Amino acid sequence: MITVTAFKWVPPFAAGQVRDHRVRWILNEAGWPYEIRLLDAVDQKSADHRARQPFGQVPTLEEDGRPPMFESGAIVWDIAERAGVLIPSDPVMRAQVLGWYFAALNSVEGALANVAEAEFFMPDEAAKAVRRPQVVPFAEQRLGELQTALGGRDWLVGEDFTVADLMMSSVLKIAASLKLLEAFPALQAYHDRCLDRPAYKKAVADQCATIAAHGPRDMRYREAQAAS
Amino acid sequence: MITVTAFKWVPPFAAGQVRDHRVRWILNEAGWPYEIRLLDAVDQKSADHRARQPFGQVPTLEEDGRPPMFESGAIVWDIAERAGVLIPSDPVMRAQVLGWYFAALNSVEGALANVAEAEFFMPDEAAKAVRRPQVVPFAEQRLGELQTALGGRDWLVGEDFTVADLMMSSVLKIAASLKLLEAFPALQAYHDRCLDRPAYKKAVADQCATIAAHGPRDMRYREAQAAS
Ligand SMILES: N[C@@H](CCC(=O)N[C@@H](CS)C(=O)NCC(=O)O)C(=O)O
Ligand SMILES: N[C@@H](CCC(=O)N[C@@H](CS)C(=O)NCC(=O)O)C(=O)O
Repeated sequence: MITVTAFKWVPPFAAGQVRDHRVRWILNEAGWPYEIRLLDAVDQKSADHRARQPFGQVPTLEEDGRPPMFESGAIVWDIAERAGVLIPSDPVMRAQVLGWYFAALNSVEGALANVAEAEFFMPDEAAKAVRRPQVVPFAEQRLGELQTALGGRDWLVGEDFTVADLMMSSVLKIAASLKLLEAFPALQAYHDRCLDRPAYKKAVADQCATIAAHGPRDMRYREAQAAS
Repeated sequence: MITVTAFKWVPPFAAGQVRDHRVRWILNEAGWPYEIRLLDAVDQKSADHRARQPFGQVPTLEEDGRPPMFESGAIVWDIAERAGVLIPSDPVMRAQVLGWYFAALNSVEGALANVAEAEFFMPDEAAKAVRRPQVVPFAEQRLGELQTALGGRDWLVGEDFTVADLMMSSVLKIAASLKLLEAFPALQAYHDRCLDRPAYKKAVADQCATIAAHGPRDMRYREAQAAS
């Protein structure tokens, strides 16, 4: 049996964005059943969870007879490989997929995360106003370069949706939530195309259903604060 | 034959840090010979180089009969796999290595890059003073969590140096250059242990020798500026 960790509740701006959706998505693509272990803020920073995830984050994946795995990038790649889905068997195409997969996580995500930090986590308008010109033009540059590289193609590598498209479109959700995709219509269309997969829709619907069924009280934020 | 792209010259703070050292390092570990294609600022943004690297960055890897690869994370993993070095053959240990490999690139690097942005790229002391408290505590938290996870072990996974240690120690070079490692003696010792490998030393010495043999004029920064 496979168990994935997720949060009981997150603030509205993060519903559907939490990175366990990546793991749910690939497991749905693989057709591998799984259970969810829900964490609150106390569980998250517990020694138990640190043993699964050294930074006290989600997602993780546990599977009978294996040590737990962490990092959505590692889990998604590992499942795709073992299930034999969304990674081309041709070694040259596989290397191209690997390139775009890392591009999503190591070239695009960081640029977008910097904008998200400004918009969602900075305390006041003055701080946001200082930070925006430091990060928005660079995020837009990356998105423009990505759109150019995609050109007229449907998918990043070859003729089919691959795990590179799964990861890139998951990363682009950050851009969409920041309304940064609107200026890049071909990228917006690519994003829509990727997210049109039933395995994705079920992943996000399941995450959002859990969040809707809980509230901030269920997270025990105060208890977590008091303990730390 | 294998060809790797690198810069002719970079400012002193970046000498030895440019990400082509990761590709040189794994190629040296594999014992695979390679040539370097040196780029200046004009080459970097040329259509030729964009065809290799959609974001106009280094490193890339070209190999006869294959399309070019980009992303240091993808290139290092691909070479390690194909050469059969630094990735355990046991699938469970391999999955653990994959987890730490992504942790380096998707959990640690971003936290350190934010501090590097403040220290190396912000224009004045006032801007740095605003940004430091937003990013230094988080970088220190990540380093502390990493040190705790490493515990008393020599390497991140198992009894031997793996590609996860290669990537993590390369990422920690950013922390070292920011003097952030000093507060984490076990992590500093781990870093020193990783960088003690001949394949690493040669990689950085070769990069630095090229940089020392060139200067800013060789980069054609003005011509690149005028063209853009
Ligand atoms: N690089 C990690 C990042 C994981 C991550 O950022 N998780 C977030 C949720 S999307 C989290 O747990 N945040 C809570 C926290 O950091 O305290 C991965 O991809 O798995
Ligand atoms: N995620 C990329 C990042 C590559 C990168 O940041 N390259 C830097 C040198 S270390 C670069 O080319 N900078 C010049 C620029 O961005 O214009 C990778 O790991 O390959």
